[in-house]
Amino acid sequence: MEAAGDVENERKRSMPNSKHRLRKAALAGAAGVLVASAPAFADEGMWTYDNFPAAKVKEKYGFEPGQDWLDHVRLSSARLAGGCSASFVSANGLVLTNHHCVHSCVQQLSSAKHDYVQQGFLARTKAEERVCPAMELNQLVSITDVTAEIADATNGLEGKAYSEALNGAMSGLEKSCASGSDVRCDVVTLYSGGRYHLYKYRRFQDVRLVWAPELSTAFFGGDPDNFMFPRFNLDAAFVRAYENGKPAQLDHFLRWSEEGAKAGDLSFTSGHPGRTDRQLTIAELEVQRDVLLPRRLIYLSELRGMLTEFRNRGPEQKRTANGLLFYVENSTKALGGMRNALVEKDFFASKVADEQKLRAWVAEDPTRAATYGAAWDRMAGAQREFRASMNEYYFVEGGNRSPWGFQGDFFGFARTLVRAAEEKPKASNKRLREYNDANLPAIEARLFSGAPFYPELDEALLTFSLTKLREALGTDHPFVKNLLGKESPETVARKAVRGSKLGTVGARRALYEGGAKAIAASNDPMIVLARRIDADARAIRTRYEEKVDGPQRVNGGLIAKAKFEAYGTSVYPDATFTLRLSYGAVEGWEQDGKAVAPITELGGAFERATGEDPYALPPSWLKAKGKLALATPMNFVSTNDIVGGNSGSPVVNRNGEVIGLIFDGNLPSLGGDYGFDPAVNRAVAVHSQAIIESLRTIYGASSLVDELLPVNTANGR
Amino acid sequence: MEAAGDVENERKRSMPNSKHRLRKAALAGAAGVLVASAPAFADEGMWTYDNFPAAKVKEKYGFEPGQDWLDHVRLSSARLAGGCSASFVSANGLVLTNHHCVHSCVQQLSSAKHDYVQQGFLARTKAEERVCPAMELNQLVSITDVTAEIADATNGLEGKAYSEALNGAMSGLEKSCASGSDVRCDVVTLYSGGRYHLYKYRRFQDVRLVWAPELSTAFFGGDPDNFMFPRFNLDAAFVRAYENGKPAQLDHFLRWSEEGAKAGDLSFTSGHPGRTDRQLTIAELEVQRDVLLPRRLIYLSELRGMLTEFRNRGPEQKRTANGLLFYVENSTKALGGMRNALVEKDFFASKVADEQKLRAWVAEDPTRAATYGAAWDRMAGAQREFRASMNEYYFVEGGNRSPWGFQGDFFGFARTLVRAAEEKPKASNKRLREYNDANLPAIEARLFSGAPFYPELDEALLTFSLTKLREALGTDHPFVKNLLGKESPETVARKAVRGSKLGTVGARRALYEGGAKAIAASNDPMIVLARRIDADARAIRTRYEEKVDGPQRVNGGLIAKAKFEAYGTSVYPDATFTLRLSYGAVEGWEQDGKAVAPITELGGAFERATGEDPYALPPSWLKAKGKLALATPMNFVSTNDIVGGNSGSPVVNRNGEVIGLIFDGNLPSLGGDYGFDPAVNRAVAVHSQAIIESLRTIYGASSLVDELLPVNTANGR
Repeated sequence: MEAAGDVENERKRSMPNSKHRLRKAALAGAAGVLVASAPAFADEGMWTYDNFPAAKVKEKYGFEPGQDWLDHVRLSSARLAGGCSASFVSANGLVLTNHHCVHSCVQQLSSAKHDYVQQGFLARTKAEERVCPAMELNQLVSITDVTAEIADATNGLEGKAYSEALNGAMSGLEKSCASGSDVRCDVVTLYSGGRYHLYKYRRFQDVRLVWAPELSTAFFGGDPDNFMFPRFNLDAAFVRAYENGKPAQLDHFLRWSEEGAKAGDLSFTSGHPGRTDRQLTIAELEVQRDVLLPRRLIYLSELRGMLTEFRNRGPEQKRTANGLLFYVENSTKALGGMRNALVEKDFFASKVADEQKLRAWVAEDPTRAATYGAAWDRMAGAQREFRASMNEYYFVEGGNRSPWGFQGDFFGFARTLVRAAEEKPKASNKRLREYNDANLPAIEARLFSGAPFYPELDEALLTFSLTKLREALGTDHPFVKNLLGKESPETVARKAVRGSKLGTVGARRALYEGGAKAIAASNDPMIVLARRIDADARAIRTRYEEKVDGPQRVNGGLIAKAKFEAYGTSVYPDATFTLRLSYGAVEGWEQDGKAVAPITELGGAFERATGEDPYALPPSWLKAKGKLALATPMNFVSTNDIVGGNSGSPVVNRNGEVIGLIFDGNLPSLGGDYGFDPAVNRAVAVHSQAIIESLRTIYGASSLVDELLPVNTANGR
Repeated sequence: MEAAGDVENERKRSMPNSKHRLRKAALAGAAGVLVASAPAFADEGMWTYDNFPAAKVKEKYGFEPGQDWLDHVRLSSARLAGGCSASFVSANGLVLTNHHCVHSCVQQLSSAKHDYVQQGFLARTKAEERVCPAMELNQLVSITDVTAEIADATNGLEGKAYSEALNGAMSGLEKSCASGSDVRCDVVTLYSGGRYHLYKYRRFQDVRLVWAPELSTAFFGGDPDNFMFPRFNLDAAFVRAYENGKPAQLDHFLRWSEEGAKAGDLSFTSGHPGRTDRQLTIAELEVQRDVLLPRRLIYLSELRGMLTEFRNRGPEQKRTANGLLFYVENSTKALGGMRNALVEKDFFASKVADEQKLRAWVAEDPTRAATYGAAWDRMAGAQREFRASMNEYYFVEGGNRSPWGFQGDFFGFARTLVRAAEEKPKASNKRLREYNDANLPAIEARLFSGAPFYPELDEALLTFSLTKLREALGTDHPFVKNLLGKESPETVARKAVRGSKLGTVGARRALYEGGAKAIAASNDPMIVLARRIDADARAIRTRYEEKVDGPQRVNGGLIAKAKFEAYGTSVYPDATFTLRLSYGAVEGWEQDGKAVAPITELGGAFERATGEDPYALPPSWLKAKGKLALATPMNFVSTNDIVGGNSGSPVVNRNGEVIGLIFDGNLPSLGGDYGFDPAVNRAVAVHSQAIIESLRTIYGASSLVDELLPVNTANGR
């Protein structure tokens, strides 16, 4: 599945700094003079709406989207704050997105009596529509270029003064733009600072569930079919935006194409790709390919085997391990796809050629050479440091998330409590960044959430991860000696988890509020463990930040500037979880020498079904089979350039109508982090006809069909 | 551990064809004229005794082993037929080898009452020495060059006539050489046929266990320390060769160096490296690095996680899964080390340079170009085919061992029975090669062995491997559809294992003897499963042999011939599990920027011990601690070039004395399959002093010490 969440986390973990990218591209109109010798890749790009290459689309597909078309599709697009995309599909605030984007809402609305995840949900009237707790929709109302304002505010400044002025200017622009609680404004940094744009959104905070099918059809095929094609998934759902307790009234929404996608159709996707790293240097890509991705894959694969078998301990263990197992399996496939892309010789050679071209262009001019010339070698030096310190850093600190060596909720609480006690007394800007004032609310929300957790799983995870830590750093590493002393990973984990009181919110709150004194006095074994290793862990982090992260940021920033000087906005910026438009066509590809057809049919789901998980169709499908038009198109692929975060994006034809709904990418598209290969990268979508046919024939959701297809319904179809 | 068995199997699986290698090397004396522009790597090489570069050793180390020295060390060396090396260390047939080389003997001699694996074994008198079932020792008596005889016999022949003449000539030479049951003769193919040598061995078939310490000291540190250094392992054992019921009397044996290895010492290892693939082309190495090794590592890692957690089902499950888990962990480390070697840019670049040099030399001469020039591109073509068919082949057929998609003993029996029924009626040379007359006895031995096996583990393994097969080939693959039908991997495995009668020797014998008719009539669900997929599996195998294996053999053979034409015997041949001598020095290395000292001390074992597995020393050690000389050298590393099969090799100084005992290599040495990096590849040995000190102070084995150190003991130590 293409939700931004999990895969994004994996990606973020791999690459700490966000920069932008460019590739073989047309000559920039700017002062840069890097002559384009290679054509732009067909259909590549996640373009901002204010810089869409409409002329290119016309050249290839004979259709040039005009400003009205672009405004209409933009205003019909929506973002789900949790990490997905969506679109308005009726004047009455109806919103189309993926089932996996509303899965947590469906779960929250469920009870022991009504398991809507398993049974599906349908509101037959508006009164039956149920508020999704904590769901927010954003509609992009306008884009304003504020590059000049930012430049004015930061002109001549450097270092800390520069960052402070930059942050101040951004906050000021955002505040003066956001006039009320129904407006959200963000200054978006594009091209690593080449451009600053002010994005103004209309906010919808009352969002209600309208329809969600059973998980067994939404995620039909489970992990074996995840990121694969042919597919037969009804990964679709409807919610509705409300304002003042009534369905929101919208001037712009996408009309439904009853015919939907056909092979060869021009297709647009309008959505919010989460993050790409297409600008990484060769030195960084080599480390990804040779070191980081393989190591992570091996770690996750072993964890996957452990969790799969852990589920056999009993039904409760199965239930508690399922969520993590899904995450691990999804990540393993995603990272495997990323590695596959990097070991493709032609793809990697194209990245090398791009870098050599840019470096040659930099070297041509003495000023450019003096400014940027050394950045690549310094980046390569940072990567050598990364190789040397990677194990320590990832196993002990873990980047953006829990360290590879200390998995489980209990340890996470303990480290947070130990560190918060030390950090909170400091000035906000002197703290470890995750403890500054802006981030404390998130930390407190996690600490004091009553979410259930599972000591038996926690102990298994901590045992596993401590064992892997010892293996990675070696038994002789001083950190390992201090950590384990004369005990085994099993013993350390067992004592720390079984003896800990951190399972209760009260205990955590007492330690948090008690601060350094309470932490120092605690004899909770998990606190003792976190306390004992914290000085060593901080030293490892500091070393990493000085030797790896800092040099990566500085030199990555320089390379990004050189690129923007060369290419300007003739290329698209890296993804930033903001609205982008991509174009392409409904088209299969060749896999292992065989052609993969671009469109599947409803009937294929029945052929594929075995009755056993994950190929068991829900009873509603089996019951309706005789009445269904089995030749109805079900899922399809297109050449649109998407990544995680695009889940829920509408696929739109030249008339601005919905012809499908993005829910996944194929296996090769997982290389989309690094670049786009038009030969094999494919977006995977639910066909618009499949949604209508299932609503009508399986789910009996006639009012929903009427809302989507008002004219046709009047025709009596 | 460096036993040839497991790791060799992994290596064999990866590379079906055996060829030879060369590298930057001195100019051959032969007609070949490839000028050496680069120096030979220091200390590299597993040299045959009749072509040892004594002058090179003198140049570097100031000592030139003469013919007497070489003859003495060769005649003091021994091979354990099961896949290890050894040496004679007294005139009365005493033999030194590794504990892990006699582990299965120790286990076979154990009973419920006496677990010698856990408690160790010591024969205080010769009468207490116990016969090791099925252990055989070989001593290399002579080497005769029979290249001319083979050439005469095969002159002018091609294709099948050539193979038949070659096999006939080899058998003839072996038969006329082997005069009795105490002699064994093998024609050894060196340099992929550049040389044929007749190796004559004296056989010792009565071998008795003298001393083996507890597994917990022999394999101290378990998997975490496996392939690592510093180490503290007493991986040593003594057996004794008997003739006519009496200890064998030997003219040649290695005297014991009481002082043993010191840092900087010149060191020789005399042993039987099992197999290397240092001649692989770049196209083959790329596939290893990018595709095969990563995929296998991911598979084994997931299996490792599954087995680790499977052990938690209960004590019996732990016992039954331990052996496989050891194999999986050992393989994972070994294959990881091989991958690490290949992603080292400098190492890989040296392989590329070697190939380019040879190709340039071939291209220089029209005759050579016509003969060999196309081989590399054809090999690259075979590798493209390999990438396309690898998953099918390994998951369904599996090369030399059980297929990745069908793990477990039950399926192995079923496939063997199904295929034997079809193959046996054919002429021997028309059968699948593992069913020809020469191989049938091994197949029957396996089928009719009463070795225990474990249905619960078998079912878990089959479930796991069928799930991986579906994942690798995809749910839509015709093979998968035929295999699973409408069932899940769990269901197929459960039905096939639980319903099968193949657990009894009687059932297997009846099916084997009943032939095709019995197989066709069987409704044993495991037989039904193996039968159902057999036609598809055979088709996959045929395709692989035609597209990949055949072209690899042909073009690999051509490239090997070109190399021999260029370099002759100025380089060493790839390992062939025959006796080789390597030279080097006792020397640490630099790891992650830190110097690793070359020698550890006995006391380090106590510091490292935690009392918890795998760092629990046996009671005998804890009891003796106060009396032990803790500064006694324990383990050490040297630059000798070794691989699996060298386990048990003596480390010998310039006086021909035992200064240590090879038992492992360090992590970088696992790249030894592909080449030798003198900067980091290290052999790991038990120090001769550690063996004496532990025999004397821990094990009270004074008569053994007297036999090893007769003079010194007379001196009162």
